[in-house]
Amino acid sequence: MSGDKPGAGAKVVLAYSGGLDTSTILVWLQEQGYQVVAYLANIGQDEDFEAVKEKALKFGALKMVIPDLREEFVTDYIWPAIQGNAMYEDRYLLGTALARPLIAKAMVKVAVEEGAQFVSHGATGKGNDQIRFELGAYALQPDIKVISPWRMPEFFTRFPGRNELFTYAEEKGIPLPVTPKTPWSMDANLMHISYESGVLENPDHHAPDGLYNMTVDPEKAPEEGEVIELEFKKGCAVRVTNVAAAVTKTNPLDVFVYLNELGGKHSIGRVDLVENRSIGMKSRGIYETPGGTILIEAHTDIEIFTMDREMRRIKRDLDLQFGDQVYKGFWFSPECEFTRKCIALSQECVEGVVTMKLYKGRVYILGRRSELSLYNEELVSMNVQGDYEPTDAGGFIKINSLRLKEYARLRKQQQS
Amino acid sequence: MSGDKPGAGAKVVLAYSGGLDTSTILVWLQEQGYQVVAYLANIGQDEDFEAVKEKALKFGALKMVIPDLREEFVTDYIWPAIQGNAMYEDRYLLGTALARPLIAKAMVKVAVEEGAQFVSHGATGKGNDQIRFELGAYALQPDIKVISPWRMPEFFTRFPGRNELFTYAEEKGIPLPVTPKTPWSMDANLMHISYESGVLENPDHHAPDGLYNMTVDPEKAPEEGEVIELEFKKGCAVRVTNVAAAVTKTNPLDVFVYLNELGGKHSIGRVDLVENRSIGMKSRGIYETPGGTILIEAHTDIEIFTMDREMRRIKRDLDLQFGDQVYKGFWFSPECEFTRKCIALSQECVEGVVTMKLYKGRVYILGRRSELSLYNEELVSMNVQGDYEPTDAGGFIKINSLRLKEYARLRKQQQS
Amino acid sequence: MSGDKPGAGAKVVLAYSGGLDTSTILVWLQEQGYQVVAYLANIGQDEDFEAVKEKALKFGALKMVIPDLREEFVTDYIWPAIQGNAMYEDRYLLGTALARPLIAKAMVKVAVEEGAQFVSHGATGKGNDQIRFELGAYALQPDIKVISPWRMPEFFTRFPGRNELFTYAEEKGIPLPVTPKTPWSMDANLMHISYESGVLENPDHHAPDGLYNMTVDPEKAPEEGEVIELEFKKGCAVRVTNVAAAVTKTNPLDVFVYLNELGGKHSIGRVDLVENRSIGMKSRGIYETPGGTILIEAHTDIEIFTMDREMRRIKRDLDLQFGDQVYKGFWFSPECEFTRKCIALSQECVEGVVTMKLYKGRVYILGRRSELSLYNEELVSMNVQGDYEPTDAGGFIKINSLRLKEYARLRKQQQS
Amino acid sequence: MSGDKPGAGAKVVLAYSGGLDTSTILVWLQEQGYQVVAYLANIGQDEDFEAVKEKALKFGALKMVIPDLREEFVTDYIWPAIQGNAMYEDRYLLGTALARPLIAKAMVKVAVEEGAQFVSHGATGKGNDQIRFELGAYALQPDIKVISPWRMPEFFTRFPGRNELFTYAEEKGIPLPVTPKTPWSMDANLMHISYESGVLENPDHHAPDGLYNMTVDPEKAPEEGEVIELEFKKGCAVRVTNVAAAVTKTNPLDVFVYLNELGGKHSIGRVDLVENRSIGMKSRGIYETPGGTILIEAHTDIEIFTMDREMRRIKRDLDLQFGDQVYKGFWFSPECEFTRKCIALSQECVEGVVTMKLYKGRVYILGRRSELSLYNEELVSMNVQGDYEPTDAGGFIKINSLRLKEYARLRKQQQS
Repeated sequence: MSGDKPGAGAKVVLAYSGGLDTSTILVWLQEQGYQVVAYLANIGQDEDFEAVKEKALKFGALKMVIPDLREEFVTDYIWPAIQGNAMYEDRYLLGTALARPLIAKAMVKVAVEEGAQFVSHGATGKGNDQIRFELGAYALQPDIKVISPWRMPEFFTRFPGRNELFTYAEEKGIPLPVTPKTPWSMDANLMHISYESGVLENPDHHAPDGLYNMTVDPEKAPEEGEVIELEFKKGCAVRVTNVAAAVTKTNPLDVFVYLNELGGKHSIGRVDLVENRSIGMKSRGIYETPGGTILIEAHTDIEIFTMDREMRRIKRDLDLQFGDQVYKGFWFSPECEFTRKCIALSQECVEGVVTMKLYKGRVYILGRRSELSLYNEELVSMNVQGDYEPTDAGGFIKINSLRLKEYARLRKQQQS
Repeated sequence: MSGDKPGAGAKVVLAYSGGLDTSTILVWLQEQGYQVVAYLANIGQDEDFEAVKEKALKFGALKMVIPDLREEFVTDYIWPAIQGNAMYEDRYLLGTALARPLIAKAMVKVAVEEGAQFVSHGATGKGNDQIRFELGAYALQPDIKVISPWRMPEFFTRFPGRNELFTYAEEKGIPLPVTPKTPWSMDANLMHISYESGVLENPDHHAPDGLYNMTVDPEKAPEEGEVIELEFKKGCAVRVTNVAAAVTKTNPLDVFVYLNELGGKHSIGRVDLVENRSIGMKSRGIYETPGGTILIEAHTDIEIFTMDREMRRIKRDLDLQFGDQVYKGFWFSPECEFTRKCIALSQECVEGVVTMKLYKGRVYILGRRSELSLYNEELVSMNVQGDYEPTDAGGFIKINSLRLKEYARLRKQQQS
Repeated sequence: MSGDKPGAGAKVVLAYSGGLDTSTILVWLQEQGYQVVAYLANIGQDEDFEAVKEKALKFGALKMVIPDLREEFVTDYIWPAIQGNAMYEDRYLLGTALARPLIAKAMVKVAVEEGAQFVSHGATGKGNDQIRFELGAYALQPDIKVISPWRMPEFFTRFPGRNELFTYAEEKGIPLPVTPKTPWSMDANLMHISYESGVLENPDHHAPDGLYNMTVDPEKAPEEGEVIELEFKKGCAVRVTNVAAAVTKTNPLDVFVYLNELGGKHSIGRVDLVENRSIGMKSRGIYETPGGTILIEAHTDIEIFTMDREMRRIKRDLDLQFGDQVYKGFWFSPECEFTRKCIALSQECVEGVVTMKLYKGRVYILGRRSELSLYNEELVSMNVQGDYEPTDAGGFIKINSLRLKEYARLRKQQQS
Repeated sequence: MSGDKPGAGAKVVLAYSGGLDTSTILVWLQEQGYQVVAYLANIGQDEDFEAVKEKALKFGALKMVIPDLREEFVTDYIWPAIQGNAMYEDRYLLGTALARPLIAKAMVKVAVEEGAQFVSHGATGKGNDQIRFELGAYALQPDIKVISPWRMPEFFTRFPGRNELFTYAEEKGIPLPVTPKTPWSMDANLMHISYESGVLENPDHHAPDGLYNMTVDPEKAPEEGEVIELEFKKGCAVRVTNVAAAVTKTNPLDVFVYLNELGGKHSIGRVDLVENRSIGMKSRGIYETPGGTILIEAHTDIEIFTMDREMRRIKRDLDLQFGDQVYKGFWFSPECEFTRKCIALSQECVEGVVTMKLYKGRVYILGRRSELSLYNEELVSMNVQGDYEPTDAGGFIKINSLRLKEYARLRKQQQS
């Protein structure tokens, strides 16, 4: 009887991908006495969801839940990230980090609906995702219990390497991967694919040919660029127009998918970096974020175009905090909620149209226009004086030099 | 006698470019009774310095001084900027802003040597450069007097447009420009060329064909990328190697010139933005910074690779301050000196080699290595446990969730 | 006819205090051909407003407008300042800086109502107030014209010293001050009195006896302290209770006046500092801010008690920005509006009661309580384990030490 | 034989206070098979060190090491803290947090000297000190092993309450405390005493009479204040002078001890707050920091007096980071070392003399003087024009209003 076992018949919602690791965990949890509800979030990854479901049920899951979260991912996670120009360590656009809280939220929802007190996942003990998952879960459902097999000695000492997993899988009838595993791991969703570990662990080892999936190699990208217009309202993309191709998209998910398509075609958004994980170790990651890269370039442009300089300086600090919060798994936290609200406040007037050319890996900003810009062509013109007195600048400079002159005076005095 | 005139025989050092504006000022200053020493800094712009000298003397300058500042520009201005990943408003690499304080410093030196109490320049009253020039001059020589004709009503009301300048020039024998003026203005030095005003004042007007000078159009860049290695010590580039071409450079100026050449060839470093000028107006600028862009990409990579995460978070804030200080003309200020010293302190261990591919507008980081990195391949490996206890991560997450659980508790209480 | 004069019959609203300086300006403006509407804001200073009005009319003002701004001052300026713990250079509570934008706003309103295109004030050319006034006026009414006599050569060269003012006053029938001028200047409003210049210009000269007006000397303050309770909702004081004295106040103005009274009685809120003016010079100021000091001490306490740590860290940065913005006269600016909105957002849960003792110059916090605090007595207790696993802390520490160990490893390697 | 036990004869250095808890741990560690070297840091707490040593040896310690760290505490920990105006959450002066890394450093030194692979301490599993101790130890000696009994189930389940400790103590001959335990816990060193837990866990419970040890109650402080002069060089106190009492101290430890004495006499430096612990829970603490409070008040004054405004704005951000780093136990970390170096850099010109009056709980700054101040009495004077053109201020204001006018323009446009 399961009652004698750790699980004792309790229900657990397992984030299940259909792969070897989580299939093993699915079976192992049942061995421990748990009843398992399998769960897989559709966040736009390329997946045969029906096949995963069949697998889950075949290996004993009570049921399999596969919510479609793509629209929510775009409007509630990616859009705020673009508003906040969210980046980690100046370059990573946070594709995985943004998806995790949403996956955790939907998983907790399943747990509540299914009356499960436990959730479980197959994230490793050295990574960021365990943190993002679990902080999200605890924040939304403080009394949830998390089963993290790769951090449990009874699990990880039983499966110290791939061989032990294979043996167990064979015993349990879990099919081994038919295609040979790539010598790196990847995580894919609507926003990006990330690659890490394996041969990439050597930070001087160049990204192997054939690694990328969302973007073509720049050498193979079209010889001619493509011009698009992207329209923003309140800092969110509301319309993309490809005049030459006579394409227009306005629904958020459509806009994002189309930008992904264009970005992929023109090789936009590849990044190779060594980053600092939440747990404090440096790690090499390679990312491709085609649509997100186009969006953040355009948003930065229209934001500077429309927003007051000093306000943006404050907002820039919030952006930096926001990027760190998201990376570290604190999406559902008082500070991140506050930061998101402040950033949203700043976007009231961030509206207008940015024209860009996409060509072989780069987004070239060509121009921008807005009904709400603080840009004043007459004021700035070199040919018209406008409402501007050049003599004022002299006073401005003189007053600004006051401090500097005093400092010079002091230093001369010190030297003498 | 000049004694009756405003200048009264006083000496003034004029920043003289040889163009129509400063030639007019050169003559006009003499009309005002000044004795003029012409001065032109060689900071790597493409210029016939001898011809400028001849012109200056022909139009009455006492003498013409042309110091070669290129080496100092690289080591004392560009290198610190790279150490500080210096950017203004996320994108402008500060090519002009970095040169101005050096030009001001050398100009003040000439003033001291020539016994001149005045300096003068042809910068306009709406721009940034008047500020950078003059703050630099006041900071280094607090009792210097600045003559800024474009801010003086007796000058700017006399020359309200180009026609009046032309008439005056003809009277004075100043040759009019032989080539028609480009419909924009530009500023060039070793680091970059900037373009603004004229047709560019419409922020939605695309950069015209033929605008760029340092970089080829991406479409015309080589069909094959070029791989280089850049080595850093204390955050400064000490060696660039192009293995395929069997080229190595180690002298700072040589390194920079070679990176400019490569960057130009591969169309690296074009930026089109609307920025906020020091005086508070928004202005459209287009920049090309080939070598600087390669350097900052590589430096960012090696810095994150070698520097502790939390230390870099503090340094990142300093970088942002630094960029703003430089843009606003405060290079010679207590705060900027302090910031530069702190940034330099942070670079002690920023050393190693970054491998990059340059291809059609982008710098692709391929890999990096360092003797001083905090990267630990064994620690981060997915295949080896290393000196790491997975169970620790559970405690880490639990403790980090404490705040979040309390917050959830409070919110539920509020809602009920 | 006034038409030949600079003013040419135009209307100007003059900020008029009734003192010698602004009376002189009132007469002088008429000499220049202006029609003058006198204006004095009642922001709680101790003043015989009727007498000022009589004076203004006697010296030729068209009319005198004296709006009562006290309530607005408390709710719209002081309350937000308390929410933002607003301080300049760690110590100045911004009493003058907070009043200036309100005074400017009401002055601009008078100008609009009276159809005046000009406003004028008697602030000096070295101070902060000219900046605060004028930035406020320009921000609210961009086409307003400002007449600032103390910056106009035709005025300040006519009145180079007090003697010239006295002579002019006698000519014009302006009564000279009957009491000898204190050897310092002061600015008073509901929130504070500031003292500067004169003998205080020597920063090592101790504040003279008898300087202070709102607070008794600590030596003369009651020998027994007084205990009060201050209740906050959304970061604003909504009730003060003095149990022993059976006093309760709930109206914002009443609360503030009562705290001023208590603070004055117990000598709370004196500060002597050298600060940095907006124009960049250091200046010695002495302030007494009795009620404001009590409020900010209590607010800081209840804020930390109720607000999440990480959220407050972000808010703290906003607070610092806010204090600088207010000091520098940018209350009506995009950045300050944004900052105030963000700060207000942060105060949703800042509610509760702080108990304090006021005694001889200090506010002693005795305790605090709140329905919305994140404080959890059971969790923190040393005697109860609560919902807390001590072993988790071990993992937390281990993970946090990862970076430090890597750094130690690297340093040892460097040293060897 | 100890070989069968967990300790297996290994050596451990135990931070031993002589109290019931660490005496129990001393005996318990031996039961586990460890050889124990007792260690107690003399950081200025009031303690009978000889008696503690006797106790340690009596209960089986191999030896007892008691290094005198007082001088190092002042010069290498307190002085940098004063330079950095180090505070946590605006009010806590970090007395305990500053001592912990020094204690850890000396403990690790003992471990190295004694050939011990383990260190142990009696800090609880909910507190900050476990973190500060252990992060310090790991940072300095990455392979050290920490035994933290209050986080080990085999220990804390054996001693779930005081009764079990008492029973065990009686069995082992450990003397029970003769005086009844105060209903709160305290931590004392040269810099401060902190009080927490017990009755203080109710944040609305007022600090009981008789709690404080270093400071007299303000009501009992002298009826007359005392005036002292404190001299700084490079941001460090180098001389304190009490003219009336004819006392001068110049040695760092003497200066600090004397300031403690004066501060204690005048009731300076009491603080009652709820703070956020490193592990994320809110906790009420009461502190008395007499000398430290005087120092930080004086240092802040002389720093603003001598340092450039904009430089200090940058330094202020570093100060805030520094306070957080120290509180959280990261003294020995790359970021804190970097921050301390930057702060030290900023202090080059922070020198001069501050005159203060100490009276009943408050430090009143009376005046300050410095050879290196940027203060310029002539420049700031209201009576002298100095090297200042009032008209410049007009230009300064106009240029600063440019942005604001554009913003007003845009908003009017939006509203219409």
